Amino acid sequence: MTFAVEPGTVLAMQIAPAGTAGNLTVEQFTVTLDGQPAAVTELAGDHGGRLHVVRSNAGRLQIAYTATVRPTSAGPAPGDALDTEAITYLRQSRYCPSDAMVGFAGVELGPDTTADTIAEWVFERLAYVLGTSGPTTTALETLAANAGACRDFAHLTIALCRARGIPARLAAVYAPGLTPMDFHAVVEARVDGTWRVLDPTRLAPRSSLVRIATGRDAADTAFATTLAGDAELLTFEVTAHTDGDLPSDDHTTPVTLA
Amino acid sequence: MTFAVEPGTVLAMQIAPAGTAGNLTVEQFTVTLDGQPAAVTELAGDHGGRLHVVRSNAGRLQIAYTATVRPTSAGPAPGDALDTEAITYLRQSRYCPSDAMVGFAGVELGPDTTADTIAEWVFERLAYVLGTSGPTTTALETLAANAGACRDFAHLTIALCRARGIPARLAAVYAPGLTPMDFHAVVEARVDGTWRVLDPTRLAPRSSLVRIATGRDAADTAFATTLAGDAELLTFEVTAHTDGDLPSDDHTTPVTLA
Amino acid sequence: MTFAVEPGTVLAMQIAPAGTAGNLTVEQFTVTLDGQPAAVTELAGDHGGRLHVVRSNAGRLQIAYTATVRPTSAGPAPGDALDTEAITYLRQSRYCPSDAMVGFAGVELGPDTTADTIAEWVFERLAYVLGTSGPTTTALETLAANAGACRDFAHLTIALCRARGIPARLAAVYAPGLTPMDFHAVVEARVDGTWRVLDPTRLAPRSSLVRIATGRDAADTAFATTLAGDAELLTFEVTAHTDGDLPSDDHTTPVTLA
Amino acid sequence: MTFAVEPGTVLAMQIAPAGTAGNLTVEQFTVTLDGQPAAVTELAGDHGGRLHVVRSNAGRLQIAYTATVRPTSAGPAPGDALDTEAITYLRQSRYCPSDAMVGFAGVELGPDTTADTIAEWVFERLAYVLGTSGPTTTALETLAANAGACRDFAHLTIALCRARGIPARLAAVYAPGLTPMDFHAVVEARVDGTWRVLDPTRLAPRSSLVRIATGRDAADTAFATTLAGDAELLTFEVTAHTDGDLPSDDHTTPVTLA
Repeated sequence: MTFAVEPGTVLAMQIAPAGTAGNLTVEQFTVTLDGQPAAVTELAGDHGGRLHVVRSNAGRLQIAYTATVRPTSAGPAPGDALDTEAITYLRQSRYCPSDAMVGFAGVELGPDTTADTIAEWVFERLAYVLGTSGPTTTALETLAANAGACRDFAHLTIALCRARGIPARLAAVYAPGLTPMDFHAVVEARVDGTWRVLDPTRLAPRSSLVRIATGRDAADTAFATTLAGDAELLTFEVTAHTDGDLPSDDHTTPVTLA
Repeated sequence: MTFAVEPGTVLAMQIAPAGTAGNLTVEQFTVTLDGQPAAVTELAGDHGGRLHVVRSNAGRLQIAYTATVRPTSAGPAPGDALDTEAITYLRQSRYCPSDAMVGFAGVELGPDTTADTIAEWVFERLAYVLGTSGPTTTALETLAANAGACRDFAHLTIALCRARGIPARLAAVYAPGLTPMDFHAVVEARVDGTWRVLDPTRLAPRSSLVRIATGRDAADTAFATTLAGDAELLTFEVTAHTDGDLPSDDHTTPVTLA
Repeated sequence: MTFAVEPGTVLAMQIAPAGTAGNLTVEQFTVTLDGQPAAVTELAGDHGGRLHVVRSNAGRLQIAYTATVRPTSAGPAPGDALDTEAITYLRQSRYCPSDAMVGFAGVELGPDTTADTIAEWVFERLAYVLGTSGPTTTALETLAANAGACRDFAHLTIALCRARGIPARLAAVYAPGLTPMDFHAVVEARVDGTWRVLDPTRLAPRSSLVRIATGRDAADTAFATTLAGDAELLTFEVTAHTDGDLPSDDHTTPVTLA
Repeated sequence: MTFAVEPGTVLAMQIAPAGTAGNLTVEQFTVTLDGQPAAVTELAGDHGGRLHVVRSNAGRLQIAYTATVRPTSAGPAPGDALDTEAITYLRQSRYCPSDAMVGFAGVELGPDTTADTIAEWVFERLAYVLGTSGPTTTALETLAANAGACRDFAHLTIALCRARGIPARLAAVYAPGLTPMDFHAVVEARVDGTWRVLDPTRLAPRSSLVRIATGRDAADTAFATTLAGDAELLTFEVTAHTDGDLPSDDHTTPVTLA
C-alpha cells in the first residue's frame, strides 16, 4: 500500500500474522519513504497480535509485507467456561451495541440459540453488498439495512451472540480464496471454553485463514491507524493464496483459528 | 394538568378532539393561572387538529379540559391511491427512520406485507413495558429493544409500513378502556385510499377512539409543547370513558377514525 | 437524468419550480421511456411545490426539464408571529433532531441567538466537503463530524434554530452560480413573521435562487422518490444560470425566497 | 446491595478495589443467599481489577463488601510514549465514539488541546443533572444534551481526548466526599507516559479516590453484570470515607491514581 504522508506522521499497522497464527517460514516487511528505507518498531498486541509502528516524514510512504505461514493444526487450549477473557468479550463495544439489542435477540433467536445458529441466521438473511456501509456503521444499523460487507456481517453476528450471553470477538484475517481479495473479518465465539471461528459470509474456507489482529470489533483491528500527522491512502493491494488447492468448507463443522 | 411556569411562557396544547372527530356536544376548556382565568387562542392544525396556545406569566398554571363527543360513523372519504397526502406519509420522520429500515422490512415481512400483517407482527412480538423508552427513542431502537409503550408500538408499525411502501401516520387519541388510562397513540395506514386505524398494542377498542392530533410521528402530536419560557409539569390526569358498555374489538376488521 | 427502471415503477419527481417561485415564462417537461413519450401527472405539494408522478414500464427512462423563471420581487406576506406553520417548523424531524440538541444549542449559542448568528456560526465552523456524509446523516452527526455538503449545513442550521425556539425549514432550490452545479439546499427561518432565506454555505447569491420544494428537512424535498418498483439513477445533470451577471450577496442583508 | 435472583444466575461483580489501589488492611466480602453463605470466585481483570463471580440459586441474594485501603503515594511507572496500552485507549468504544467526533474536537478545542483543557471544558460547560441520561447514552448524545451524570462527563472527556490523539480511559472508583454518595467514574488520560486522573465533575478530591475497575468506558466497569439467569437489583448502598479530613483538590495539579 502507498500513502501520501505529512511531516511527523505516525502509523500503527496491523498487517502481519499474529504470533500464534502458525510458523512464519518467510517474512519480509519493507517500508520506504520516497524510495529510502524507513524505520519500523514492533509492539505486541492482544492475542499474539503484532503492531508495527511507522514514524515518517513527509513524502510517499510505501509499505510492503510478504509472509509464508504454515498454519498449525492445534488451536488454542480450551479455557475455563467463565474466565476474564470470556467476560471481556460479552461486553458491548463500539460497533456491536449488544446492550441495546438484547430484546431483539431474545425474540428473534429463541432460548436455544448457539453461535452456529446465529452465524447461519446472519448468512441466510443479510445481503453481501459492498458500499452500503461506512466506517461508523454499527450492528444495529446493519440489522436495519440488512446488507453490508464482511465486517458488518461479523459485527451483527458478534452483537447477537453477546446479546444471547455467548462471548464473541472479531478476527481480522488473511483469507485465501476470498473474492474480491481483501483483508477479511470473521467471528470467534466461545463454545465449551474454545474459541470457534465462524464466517457468516461463507466467502472463504476457514481452515486456511491466517489471523492478523483480534479484538472486540473493527475498532481493534484496523489495518492502519494514524496516531499522529496525516496519511492519505493512495493505493492498496492484498494477496493471499495457499500452496496447492484451496480446502473446502461446509461452514458447519467446528474450526479453530491458529 | 398543572404546570409551574416561568414569566413569558407560551405553551401549545393539543388535547382537544380534532374538528373531524365527531360532534362535540359539550366542551369546557379552563385555564387558570394562580386561580385567575387565563387567555387561550385556538389555531387550526393539520387534519382538523386544534392547537390551543396559552400565554402565561409566572405561577401555577392549571389546565382542565372536558368534552362529550358523539363519534360519527362515517370515516373520511377515500382519497386517490397516490395523492400528496399519501406521499407525505411515506416519508421518513424523526422517530420513524423508515429510510434506514428498508432492508430489514423487506427480509422480515416479505413481498405481500399489508398494514394489517405489520401491526399484527408488532403486536405479537413486542413487549409492552412502560419505562423502557424515553422521549427520543426511535423505531429502530424499539426494534432492537423489542419493548416499549404505545408510542413505540406505533412508531415501529409506521416505520415498517413506510419501509414497505404503505403510507402511515400517528394519531394521538382519547382511548376509553385503556389501562392504565393515559393519552394513547395509534396508527393510521392508507389502504385502498382510506386511512385505516390500527392499534398494535390492542389495548383499547378502536371504534370508541377520539382523535386529538394527527401527524408523522409523536413529534407532531405532543400534548404540550413549550414554545417560550419554561413550564414544568407537576400533575397530570386523563380520563376517557364511554356512555354504556365499551365495544369489543377483534383488531382485524377494518375501522376508520372519525 | 436517466434511470434504468423495472416494470411497474412509480417515481415522484420534485424538480419543477414551486408555483410561488415566480413567473414561468417557458417550461418544458419531457419524459421518455426508451425514446417514446411517457405520461406524467402533476400533484400539488406543500408551499406551492409541484410533484410530478411518473409511472413507467421497464426500460431506460429519461427525464428532462427546462424552465425560464422571472423571480418576483415580493416575498410572501408576513404571517402571524405564532401560527400553525411556525409551530410545525419548530418540531424535530428526521435529519434535524432538535429535541436532542437543546442543551448544546443553549450553551454554545447563548440567549440572544438569532437565525442569522446561527447560520453564520455554521458557515464559519463547518468544512464544506463532499462525500463525508450519506443519505441518513443527521444534524447531530454533522455537528460531530464538523463537515458536510449543503444539505448537512442546512440541517445543522435548522436543528440549532429549532432548538433555540426559531422556526426553520429547508428549501430545495435551483442556485445559479453554485460550483459545482447541482441542486442546492438552503434554510428558511421565521423572523418577525417572515420566512427569511439563509445559506450557511454562502455558495450562491440568495436573490437568484428558485424554490423547488419546501419542507422539514431533506426527507421532504428529495428530487426523486421511488414509490413503487425500482429505478437506478444512471446519469444526472443540473444547469441553472441567470440572464446577465450573477448578483452579489453579502449574506447578511435580509432576503426572502419567492 | 440486594438482588432478587432466578435459578442458575451468575453475576460478575466489580466492587473490590483493584490490586494496585493500595494496601488493603481489612477486607470483608460477604455473600448470602436467603441468609446462607454463598460461594464467590475471584478472577483477575485488566489493570489489577478484581472480578468476583457469584453463582446463585433462586432467592434473595445479599452482597456486602467492606475494605480499608491505605492509598499508596506512588502512581504507576511512566510507560513508553507509544506502547500497546496507549494505542488501545486511543480506540473508539461503545460510549465514546471518538471516530465520529474528530471534526468537532478539532474545531472546538484547537491544535494545542491537552487532557487538562478538555476536562476543564467539560466541567465548565456540562450541567450535572441526574436522570437525564440512560444506560445506552453515548458521549455524542451527551454533547448534544449538554447534561449528564459522572459517567457521561467521563465519556465525553474520554471521547474528546481520543479524538485529539490523547489516550484516555475510564476508572470506576470509590470517592470519599462525593455527594450524593455512589460509585463514581473518572478519567485517566495518558500525559508524558503517565496515566493522570481527571475528574470533569470536580465532585470529589482525586487523591483519596480508590480504583475499582479500569477500562475503555462504562461497558468495562459495570459494578454488576448478569452473565446468566436474571437478577433484579432491590436495594443498593455505597459508603466511602477517609480517616480524618477530606483532602482538598484544585483539580489542576497532576494526580495519579494508585
